[in-house]
Amino acid sequence: AKEVKMSENKKHGAVAGTLNADDVWAVSPALAQYTAGPLLDGVWKRPELTPRDRSVVTVAALIARIQLIEMPYHFALALDNGVKPGELSEIITHLAFYAGWANAMSAVAIAKDIFHRRGIGVDQLPPAKDKLLQLNEEAEKQRAAQVSNNFGAVSPGLVQKTTDLLFRDLWLRPALAPRDRSLVTVSALIANGQTAQITYHLGRAMDNGLTQEQASEVLTQIAFYAGWPCAFSALPVVKDVFEKRQK
Amino acid sequence: AKEVKMSENKKHGAVAGTLNADDVWAVSPALAQYTAGPLLDGVWKRPELTPRDRSVVTVAALIARIQLIEMPYHFALALDNGVKPGELSEIITHLAFYAGWANAMSAVAIAKDIFHRRGIGVDQLPPAKDKLLQLNEEAEKQRAAQVSNNFGAVSPGLVQKTTDLLFRDLWLRPALAPRDRSLVTVSALIANGQTAQITYHLGRAMDNGLTQEQASEVLTQIAFYAGWPCAFSALPVVKDVFEKRQK
Amino acid sequence: AKEVKMSENKKHGAVAGTLNADDVWAVSPALAQYTAGPLLDGVWKRPELTPRDRSVVTVAALIARIQLIEMPYHFALALDNGVKPGELSEIITHLAFYAGWANAMSAVAIAKDIFHRRGIGVDQLPPAKDKLLQLNEEAEKQRAAQVSNNFGAVSPGLVQKTTDLLFRDLWLRPALAPRDRSLVTVSALIANGQTAQITYHLGRAMDNGLTQEQASEVLTQIAFYAGWPCAFSALPVVKDVFEKRQK
Repeated sequence: AKEVKMSENKKHGAVAGTLNADDVWAVSPALAQYTAGPLLDGVWKRPELTPRDRSVVTVAALIARIQLIEMPYHFALALDNGVKPGELSEIITHLAFYAGWANAMSAVAIAKDIFHRRGIGVDQLPPAKDKLLQLNEEAEKQRAAQVSNNFGAVSPGLVQKTTDLLFRDLWLRPALAPRDRSLVTVSALIANGQTAQITYHLGRAMDNGLTQEQASEVLTQIAFYAGWPCAFSALPVVKDVFEKRQK
Repeated sequence: AKEVKMSENKKHGAVAGTLNADDVWAVSPALAQYTAGPLLDGVWKRPELTPRDRSVVTVAALIARIQLIEMPYHFALALDNGVKPGELSEIITHLAFYAGWANAMSAVAIAKDIFHRRGIGVDQLPPAKDKLLQLNEEAEKQRAAQVSNNFGAVSPGLVQKTTDLLFRDLWLRPALAPRDRSLVTVSALIANGQTAQITYHLGRAMDNGLTQEQASEVLTQIAFYAGWPCAFSALPVVKDVFEKRQK
Repeated sequence: AKEVKMSENKKHGAVAGTLNADDVWAVSPALAQYTAGPLLDGVWKRPELTPRDRSVVTVAALIARIQLIEMPYHFALALDNGVKPGELSEIITHLAFYAGWANAMSAVAIAKDIFHRRGIGVDQLPPAKDKLLQLNEEAEKQRAAQVSNNFGAVSPGLVQKTTDLLFRDLWLRPALAPRDRSLVTVSALIANGQTAQITYHLGRAMDNGLTQEQASEVLTQIAFYAGWPCAFSALPVVKDVFEKRQK
C-alpha cells in the first residue's frame, strides 16, 4: 500500500522545486500524505474556484513570501492551468510593487528557466510600454483625493508615485484583467498578513468582478500556502467587507 | 586572545549552514562575539527553558520565517538536544499548516540531508496515518461552534478544513505531545508577528502544560531568532493572557 | 530602440545577484523598464535623501526580509554610495537583534564575498568589543523604567537582555552613528510591517537627527523594496509621530 501511495505522490510531480515526493516521504510521511490527499486531491478540486484562479492565488502567495522552493512547481502548474505566459509575467511585475522589488526578482529567476524550457519568448510577453486600459477618472480622482488629504503632507513622494506609477499606469496595463490583478493583490495582502490594506483592495476586487463566493474560497486556498494564521487574521476584515457590501 | 575566541567560535560548529565561524568573523567580529557569548553561551544556558525546549522554539521560528541559513545547524542541534527525529518530522508537518506549505517543504529539503547523514529512516518517523489521541469533544465542540458562528458564513471552506484537518486530525497525532505542538504554534505566531492569533494559542499552550515561566522565556529566546520587534509586539498580548489566567 | 533600452539596463549592472538585466527582460520587459526608469533613474535620484541614505534604507529592508537575490547588487552599491565597510558590517550586526539572527547570517554570506573581492579585511571592520559612546543615563533610565513597569513581570529575561545587550551595548557601539542606526531600525520595522514598534523608534530617529523630510522620503524608497502595502501601513503611524512632535 505504501508503494502505491508513493507512486501516487510521484504522479503529482515534483512537489517543490528541487524536492521530489520521495524526499518529502523520507522526512515526513504525514506531510506527503496531506499534500497528495487533502491538498492536491482535495482543496485544489473544490468547485468554488477554478484551477486557474487557485494557481493565481497560490503563485501570488509564493511570490509575496519568497517561498522559492514551491515556485518551479506552481509556476509550471499555473501555465498548465491556463494562466498565460504574459499573465504570469504581469503577475510578477505587479508584485514588484505590491510585495517588493526583490520578491519579483526572485520570481524572475525561477520563471526564466520555465519560459526557456517551454520556448516562451518575449513575443509572448506584454511589452514594456503597453496601450493602457481606459481609466475611470471619477473613481481615481476620489481615491487620489482621499489619500492626498490623509497622507499628502506625510509623504508627498509616496503619494505621488502611488498615483503616477500604480493607479495611472500599472493597474491600467491590459496584460492582466483588473479582476485578476485584484485577485493577485488581495492574495498577496492576506499571505503577508497586511490586514490593514485588505479592506480597500477586497472592495476593489469585488468591484472588479470577484464574487463573494470566490473571495471566500481564496481564504481556504491561501490557508495552505501562507499558513492558517494568515487566513484567520484576514477573516474579520473580510467579514466586515462582505457585510458592508450587503447593505 | 583573538585566536582563542575564534577557536571557541569554531567549537560551536558551523554557526549557520554554509557559513562557518570564520566567515562571520570576516564580516562582523561583533556578530561573531555576540553569537559565541551572549547567545550560545548565555541565553541558551538559562535554566528557565531546557535546551530541548529552546531547540523546539528556535526550529519553529526558523521554519516559520524560512530562515534557511540557520536550519542545518539548528536541526542538528535539536536532535542533539533531545528532540526525537519523529518529533522534528512532526514539527515540520505541523508548520505546513501553521506557517505555510512551502515553509515546511523548505525544512524538508534541509532535514532530509541530516536524516540521511544520521541514518534516520522512515521506520523512526511517525506514519502518514497514525492512531490519534483522544479528543476532548466538549472543548472542541465549543471551539468549532465559536468559529462557525463568527466566520462560518464568511469562509465555509476554511472553517470546515480547520475542524477536519487541524483539530480533528493534526492536533491529535501522537508524534508530538500537545504541549510541544502548542509550543511550536506559539513560537511560529510570535516569530511571524501574528499577534491576533496569540491569545487563543497561548491559552491553549498553557492548558496543555506550558508554564508561565516557560512562556515568558520563549519571548527571550525568540527575540534573538525572530528579532526584538517580534518579541516586543507579542509582549502586551502575552501580558494580557497571563493576567486573565491569574483571575 | 529596444536594443538601446537593453544596453541601458545592462549599464545598471546586474540588477539582482544571479540575475542580469537580460534575464529580467526575458520574463518581464515591463519590470525591466520600471527598474531602469522609475526606480534606478527616478526614485534613487530624488534629492530628499542622499544615495548613501537610500542605500542604508534599502540594505536594511533587504536584510530584514531576507531578500537574498538583491543583496549582492545593493551591498556593492551601498559601498559605492559611501557606506563604509565598517558601517555595512555594523548594519548587519544591528539587524541580528532587530530582524533576527538568521537574517544577519544570510547577509554575512553575501557580504563576505564582496568584502573578499574588494580586499576588505578585518582591520577595516569594527572590533568585537569597541569603546562605547557615552550613554544618556537619564533617558535610558526612563526607557528602562517604562519597559520594566509594563513588561518586567511578563518576561524578565527579555527586559533584562534589552537593557544589557541593546541599550547599554549595541546602540553605543561607535561604528554606526546613532542617526544611521535609527535609520536602519526604522527601515527594518517598516519593511517587516512591525507598525507597533515604529512610534518609539521613529521618535528616537528624529531625536538622533533624522529630519522629517528624510523620514518622509524613507517611505517612498521603501515602498519599492518592501512593497506598497508596508509603506501604506506605516503611513498613519508616521503621520501621528510627525503631528505629535509639531506640538
